[in-house]
Amino acid sequence: MGYFVYERKVFFYETDAQGIVHHSNYPRYFEEARGFFLEQKGLPYEIIRDKLNVDIVLVELKIRYKEFLTFGDRFKIKTKIKKNNRFFFEFYYLLELKDRLICEGYTKHCCINRETKKIVSIPDAVSNLI
Amino acid sequence: MGYFVYERKVFFYETDAQGIVHHSNYPRYFEEARGFFLEQKGLPYEIIRDKLNVDIVLVELKIRYKEFLTFGDRFKIKTKIKKNNRFFFEFYYLLELKDRLICEGYTKHCCINRETKKIVSIPDAVSNLI
Amino acid sequence: MGYFVYERKVFFYETDAQGIVHHSNYPRYFEEARGFFLEQKGLPYEIIRDKLNVDIVLVELKIRYKEFLTFGDRFKIKTKIKKNNRFFFEFYYLLELKDRLICEGYTKHCCINRETKKIVSIPDAVSNLI
Amino acid sequence: MGYFVYERKVFFYETDAQGIVHHSNYPRYFEEARGFFLEQKGLPYEIIRDKLNVDIVLVELKIRYKEFLTFGDRFKIKTKIKKNNRFFFEFYYLLELKDRLICEGYTKHCCINRETKKIVSIPDAVSNLI
Repeated sequence: MGYFVYERKVFFYETDAQGIVHHSNYPRYFEEARGFFLEQKGLPYEIIRDKLNVDIVLVELKIRYKEFLTFGDRFKIKTKIKKNNRFFFEFYYLLELKDRLICEGYTKHCCINRETKKIVSIPDAVSNLI
Repeated sequence: MGYFVYERKVFFYETDAQGIVHHSNYPRYFEEARGFFLEQKGLPYEIIRDKLNVDIVLVELKIRYKEFLTFGDRFKIKTKIKKNNRFFFEFYYLLELKDRLICEGYTKHCCINRETKKIVSIPDAVSNLI
Repeated sequence: MGYFVYERKVFFYETDAQGIVHHSNYPRYFEEARGFFLEQKGLPYEIIRDKLNVDIVLVELKIRYKEFLTFGDRFKIKTKIKKNNRFFFEFYYLLELKDRLICEGYTKHCCINRETKKIVSIPDAVSNLI
Repeated sequence: MGYFVYERKVFFYETDAQGIVHHSNYPRYFEEARGFFLEQKGLPYEIIRDKLNVDIVLVELKIRYKEFLTFGDRFKIKTKIKKNNRFFFEFYYLLELKDRLICEGYTKHCCINRETKKIVSIPDAVSNLI
């Protein structure tokens, strides 16, 4: 299956005193890409939360930084989703600036019941997206 | 009444590409100073929320920036609280680096019931601090 | 003169444990709106910095919070710019969600030489926008 | 070699609408722990930058989230540093709340010359810490 593409521009407040985007913003960019992915697939996070009564939580994060973004850069994130088993799934990310790979990474997730906070198996509505 | 003093060091991720602390961090520093103030007075925010069932909300913010902080600066915030009327109160802040005034500002607050989200008069426990 | 309009959606990481957008994000939204304004006027911040050799600095910020944004809200910021004198200028902001005013504020700015860090009069290129 | 310990309290603005610390803050906590480590070892980041003329850059980040922090939690980070080869070194982190492991992770780094932005071998002053 192909990648899903999200586009975004770097805001000034995301830069640091090295003149580049601070590394802690990339997990945020990934979150934006995930949210956009779910929304475009017709299953925005609000629906997951309110209709399915689950929160998607993040249990693992890895990023390899190759190059850096600076203020004003218009980058894209290519996203892909993969199911590990009935509890866990992962998003993969390739963050590119004009076809140069800036960084790549993944996030691993599971779903928890909003009241009990216990892990539940991935709801069918989410599973069907994958 | 005198000022209450909170101390803190600038973290690297709070700087921006101009090499200084990004202006959006000062409202966060003020929040830290408020929290510290309430905690030291024996009324931490958790108590206000859970025992009194109110959230303190921020309704106005003003900051005058005189100079700038940079990475590693150890600054202090002098804080004072003032009651406007039975609904509103204000915190004043003087942020200093080695006796140079970096910025000053205030935040205006009221209390809302956590369920109804309606404004309530300032609880006595909070009022007594002021 | 009319307002200039910038649109944006609330990201999840901008919310706080009260379930609403944390107040320190609004200065960031205002910065985005300013950047977009300058860019649309043909004078992006990079040009101001590199061609005119000045940094625009923020010297004052005020926000009145009326209501709150929550995750996923698609809001707009109406922006207007005004010159105070040969050194200072201000941006005004009305942040709206479906015609409800969420907050309003202004930021006051001046220009400094990038090397000397001294205030300089507003460059003509910037002044002409106003 | 033992771990080096850094302590910190969760600020309100670090929480999100799930009521817990947003995952993007943990890379920031790790950065604080690194900075504190270097400072305590007599080699604060400012010295590395200004005396050795290098920037330490982050090339890889991994975090496994086990449990969550909430507002006001006083946590500690146990840090250890390890040299991979003449160019790369890693910091390991165990973030604990009252002896419960909240998350663990590592960051991989190299040094670049501040002007050329090219990788340089780890300066002796840094290497000696490890």
